[in-house]
Amino acid sequence: MSCDRRSACPISVALDLLGDRWTLLVIRDLAFFERSRFSEFRDAGEGIATNVLSDRLKRLTEQAIVTSRPDPTDGRRVRYHLTDKGLALIPILVEMAAWGARFDPDTAAPKEWTRRYLQDRQGLIDELVDRHRQARDAP
Amino acid sequence: MSCDRRSACPISVALDLLGDRWTLLVIRDLAFFERSRFSEFRDAGEGIATNVLSDRLKRLTEQAIVTSRPDPTDGRRVRYHLTDKGLALIPILVEMAAWGARFDPDTAAPKEWTRRYLQDRQGLIDELVDRHRQARDAP
Repeated sequence: MSCDRRSACPISVALDLLGDRWTLLVIRDLAFFERSRFSEFRDAGEGIATNVLSDRLKRLTEQAIVTSRPDPTDGRRVRYHLTDKGLALIPILVEMAAWGARFDPDTAAPKEWTRRYLQDRQGLIDELVDRHRQARDAP
Repeated sequence: MSCDRRSACPISVALDLLGDRWTLLVIRDLAFFERSRFSEFRDAGEGIATNVLSDRLKRLTEQAIVTSRPDPTDGRRVRYHLTDKGLALIPILVEMAAWGARFDPDTAAPKEWTRRYLQDRQGLIDELVDRHRQARDAP
């Protein structure tokens, strides 16, 4: 695999999008925690600034990683979801979570999650993808 | 998995280290391209500034992700290698490469690599880890 040009390396392509802490935390909130509203991302406890959050959601939408639609319970608001391109990022996040849990035993990752990752990584990914897709595609 | 505190989420822990484009590109050079010298990282084509490269190598060494030792062919220089903690990042990079190759067909990822990833992901990871470990631990 050649990476002579910045744009040519697939890892570099991914990092153009993902090489930013806040972007991946928003994707994490969407993928793992079923958060879908602006206020839910903002209040997720990491202290993201409102303007940074707006910017990241805008960029993720432009890149077709995130999509939005009116909140069925409140039409003045929107809910964000991952597109299939966004759902394809879940394996990256699962590997990050596994690495963080392994090398920082103070994290909040429950042992059950780590055991599931070690025994049935693909099943864990499929379950996260299916759950999100169902919520996203519900009428 | 709870992520109420910034420090408690294993993804957030990973991002504290990895949420930086240059850090992951240095790890990529070490893991995929068998680059191990400062000049090889600097000249890898992504245009990293010398002071940024020095800083990232220092931080990675402090975090025990990278280790260095005198270059056997030139004792005035050092070669950098991934520790086992650093090698455990390879699955994250493999997933990033797979995602980049899938959604940006202009990348330089050869079809052979993508086929290998789809058919034998774990074998691909093991091979990268073993190759690096052999180079690192050679007398």
